[in-house]
Parts: sequence; C-alpha cells; structure tokens
Amino acid sequence: MTERPFLAPFRGIASTRPPWWMLRQAGRYLPEYWEVRNRAKGFLDLCYSPELASEVTLQPIRRFGMDAAIVFSDILVIPDALGQRVSYVQGEGPKLEPIAVEALNPEGAGERLAPVYETIQRVRAALSEEKALIGFAGSPWTVATYMVEGGSSREFARIRHQAIAEPQAFGRLVDKLVVATIDYLDRQARAGVDALQLFESWAGILPEPMFRKWIVEPTQRIVDALRARHPSLPIIGFPRAAGALITTYAEETGVDAISLDLTVPVRWARSTMPSKVMQGNLDPLVLVAGGRVLDDEVRRICDAFAGHPFVFNLGHGIVPETPPDHVARVAELLRARR
Amino acid sequence: MTERPFLAPFRGIASTRPPWWMLRQAGRYLPEYWEVRNRAKGFLDLCYSPELASEVTLQPIRRFGMDAAIVFSDILVIPDALGQRVSYVQGEGPKLEPIAVEALNPEGAGERLAPVYETIQRVRAALSEEKALIGFAGSPWTVATYMVEGGSSREFARIRHQAIAEPQAFGRLVDKLVVATIDYLDRQARAGVDALQLFESWAGILPEPMFRKWIVEPTQRIVDALRARHPSLPIIGFPRAAGALITTYAEETGVDAISLDLTVPVRWARSTMPSKVMQGNLDPLVLVAGGRVLDDEVRRICDAFAGHPFVFNLGHGIVPETPPDHVARVAELLRARR
Repeated sequence: MTERPFLAPFRGIASTRPPWWMLRQAGRYLPEYWEVRNRAKGFLDLCYSPELASEVTLQPIRRFGMDAAIVFSDILVIPDALGQRVSYVQGEGPKLEPIAVEALNPEGAGERLAPVYETIQRVRAALSEEKALIGFAGSPWTVATYMVEGGSSREFARIRHQAIAEPQAFGRLVDKLVVATIDYLDRQARAGVDALQLFESWAGILPEPMFRKWIVEPTQRIVDALRARHPSLPIIGFPRAAGALITTYAEETGVDAISLDLTVPVRWARSTMPSKVMQGNLDPLVLVAGGRVLDDEVRRICDAFAGHPFVFNLGHGIVPETPPDHVARVAELLRARR
Repeated sequence: MTERPFLAPFRGIASTRPPWWMLRQAGRYLPEYWEVRNRAKGFLDLCYSPELASEVTLQPIRRFGMDAAIVFSDILVIPDALGQRVSYVQGEGPKLEPIAVEALNPEGAGERLAPVYETIQRVRAALSEEKALIGFAGSPWTVATYMVEGGSSREFARIRHQAIAEPQAFGRLVDKLVVATIDYLDRQARAGVDALQLFESWAGILPEPMFRKWIVEPTQRIVDALRARHPSLPIIGFPRAAGALITTYAEETGVDAISLDLTVPVRWARSTMPSKVMQGNLDPLVLVAGGRVLDDEVRRICDAFAGHPFVFNLGHGIVPETPPDHVARVAELLRARR
C-alpha cells in the first residue's frame, strides 16, 4: 500500500506540493450539504446519524479531492454526552442549559457517542485508499467556555472569572472534560482515523499562567494518554489566537503539528517551532474574494513553508458565502505546484 | 521642575517602582463617575462637555493617585467629526449609520473636536504638577471596523471582505482617517498632553500582508507626522491581540512604547522588543478577583519587567464590576516595591 499523501509530513517529509484539506470543508457553502442537512431534524441529529454524517463528510472529497476528510461532527457533542442539554437555534449559535459540575457524568460519555464511531467506519469504508480521515474534539478549555457561558460569548467574563477566582471548582469541570475527551478520541482512533485534531478555538483570552494551567496542561494530559495507546497516530493542535503563547503550546503539549490561525506570520511560525509539522493558514475571506489575491496568498503561504513538513489548510473555518469554484481553484493551484 | 514619574521610562529609565495608570481608569466602576455621567444627556455629550469630561478624567487620580490621567473621550469621536452619525444604546454598544466614504469630510474634523482640547486644558490646569496627561485616538483600522460594520462586531466579515477584495476603495476610507487622526492628535499635543496612545483594538483579525497594509502603514504615517511636529512627545501603540505580529508593529510603526494585551507573555515581549518601553498587562478579571491572585500577578508582571523601562497597566480595559478597593490595592503594592 502506498502511503496516504496527508501522512507524509508527519514522517518529516516536505513536499513541494503539500497535502491539503480545509477547516469546515463539509458544510454550508455546498448545496449538496443542504440537501442532506434538510433531511435531519436538527444539527445534532445530523451529527448523530452515521448515514447522513458520513455522506456530508465525503461530499467535499468527491467534489475537490482533498487529501483528508474530517469526520462531520461538533465539539459540543462532549457536553451533550456528559448530560448538559445542547440545542442549536438557526442563526444564533448553540445554547447550553446551566448544569452543576457534579451532575456531569463522564463515565460512559464516550460510549454514548457511538454514532460518531460508526460514521468514521462508514467514511473509511467509502473513502478511497489514498485519502486520510481525521477525527477531532474540542479541547477542554474551549468546550468549557460554551458549557460555562451557555453558548458563544464575546467577553467570556463568566468562565474567565471562574478560572481566575475559583480555580479548584473550575478544575473539577476541566478534569471531567479531560477524561471524557481521552475516551472519545481513543474510540475515534480505534474506529479507524489516521490523525486527530484538537480544537482550542478560544486560546487567546488568558494571561500566561492561566494559559499554562487551563490550556497547556489539560491538552498535555490528553496527548499523553492517546500517545500511550496509539503511539504512531499524529495529533494536530489548533490553539487559535494564542499569539506568542503558541510556541509554549507547541513545546509543552506534545502535539505533532500546529494548525496556524490566519494571523500567524508563517515564517515566524516555521522558525520558532522548527520541530512541528505546520498546517494552515489561508484567510477564509481571501477564499471568498478569489481572483488575484487568492492566487497570491496560496503561493505566499506554500512558498514560506517550502522545505518544511506542511499541510495546506485555512486559518479559520470556511464561511457559508464561499463560492465552491474558489475551493476548486485552490485544488488547481496546489496540483500545479512543483 | 522635577520630571513627571510617568515620563521616566520614555527617557530609558527603569525603576523598581514603575509608574502606572489603568486602561479605562475613568469609568463605570466608580460611583462618582455615575454622578457625573447622569448629568450628561448621552455618552457623546459627556465626551463633548469639557466641564464634565475633565471632572471624570480627574476622579481616579484623586482616589488612587495614578501617575497619569488619560483624557476622557472615545475613539468614535473621529467618525462623528467626519460626519457619520454615532449613537450609544445602553447595554448594546455604539451604532453608526451607514455613510458613503465620499461623504466623509476630513477637512475641519479636528476643529470640530475642540471640546476635547478644552478638556485637556482644564485637566492640565487642575492636575498636580507631578502627574502626566495622556491623549489618545483609535487607529484607522480599528475606527474603520466600527464605521464599516456599523458598530461592534464578532466576525468583522464586512470590513475584512472590503480590505481584502476592494483594497482601493477601502484605502480611500483609511486615507481620510489618517488625515483626521493626525490633525486630532496634533491638536491634543498642542493642548498640552504629555504622551499619546493609539488604540488598535482589532489588530488580531488580518493575515500578515493585510496587517502590514492596513495596520502598520497607516500607524506609521500618523507616527511620522506627529514626530515631525512634536519630536519629544512619546507615542504608545496598543495593537491588541496582534499575536506574533506585535513585533512587526513595534519595529515598523515607530511608536516608542508598546501596550501589551493580557495574553502577551511578558518575558517574550521584553526580549523580542528590547528597544521599546513596555506597558501592561494585568488581566482586568484578576483585578476583579482580588486577593492572592491579584498580589501574585502584580508581582509577576513587575518582576518580569524589572530593569526595563516599564509602565504598569492593565492588559485590557477595566470592567464595571471592579471593586475600587482592588485598584487601591494595586496602588499599595506598587508603592511598596523597592
């Protein structure tokens, strides 16, 4: 069997034509996504239907031929499995009902997410041999922001206050999330994914000591546990908006690769984190714009990572307004590299 | 005349007891602020009343004895002076009415902000000799986010799209903002401020090439123009959430000092921007928490900057929930340093 191109960078191989996929590549910018989405009762029902979720996972691969699929799911399946009610109101983002930490039940949470593992098995069976499949979870801090704030937030005042002023109580929540996340990702690995990505979407709202305690340490515990069980499975960390603390995250968590948000200067990333595989970091609004600026930015990013193990990706999730033709253009630009 | 302690770091002097002030130190956490605020019709009326604005500017100095006052005003007085209607709805943030760039009138905008210069003169006359007075403006990119989005934003999709896909049209807006901001800050300098601060609150939403074009270059034009007219006036830049691009900002804009947001690791900042005065960066929620964590964080930050020209400050604006006693505690901690 030839190696899947997506995995080459994780063996230290730098290609002039990097493998690629796109954050949120399965989703609302694709008309075929809506056809499937409209057959599900709600967003979580879509995540929990292996038939529908596997179909939307495969759609972008069929259309654009990315080197990796990422299982269609959501970072909030973890609070849902722990017993916190999660609902999605169209156009408003997720809503989570308040719940006491004591009422959250990490035992069996991984098992309750069985449909996700079935989705992984179905996707793997349908995916052609040279394509990789990525599993994922939200990191504990980021998942906790939604659980504590009750949804998306602008200021994060509640969770930041808890993390700073009540570290012991907050630590009990984080501990439960660490346990559930390890179980969940372990089961994804056993179901057949080629790599895992940890999404730390809200890495940019803590001072350094709290960043170490609530972002680096829990991530490290998850990485250590998974490494022990699946020594050769690549783990990608995405500490979005971590700023200069991204290097602390890279050095101390043990992840193999760093997914760069759109603001990270690429040459700086390469030179300050030389031992990490790099992934990123096209601005999704450059993808919306298309034309000359898209061609220029794809070239700039790929050139900056030439000679370094690298996976081309976005620096933030694809937006619904993205013309699918512009994704096709990226595929073409990458194919033409030599 | 003895030198004002706030200015010592700008002459390269590192003190074991750094001068200090706090972002948004005049404001909603102080009961005496509300007494004055309730006498004004609206928020902008408060900014445009030299009598009331000078009073709230002085309140925190009287209570806590910071080394610098900052003129009470708002970054949105610039769009207001350019002819875009700005209103404040309690609890909702600012609203700006849509306007064509062609309709914005930078000629005379500085003059229309005469009440701000009168506030500066009144504050300077009332302030004791050893206290400094800081003037400020929003940087063009940040002010433009409000003008284009029509208020605060989460995703900044509209302005980011314009900046990426329509750079020439967007450049016309930025040019007008540069002209108006230079005029406004020049007049603040002539009215008697000791230093200027440029607030770039939304520095963390652009990829590197656009960061240079829309954040670094306009700031550099403003700094160059002010430097030519007021060679010895210190200029502080606050590129909030710029991440690793903060060093590009520090190197290329020409500002004298960098105000660090709460996420910036202090030793990294000091070592990567050795020629800049540093200002920052206590988390305002640590200030809300008080107690042991407050004492620890004040010590950690001051210790990390020992031997470097440094102004103690917050890493983001003070929040309304802040107990004034906790600000007094910071004053006490700083006084006790030796």
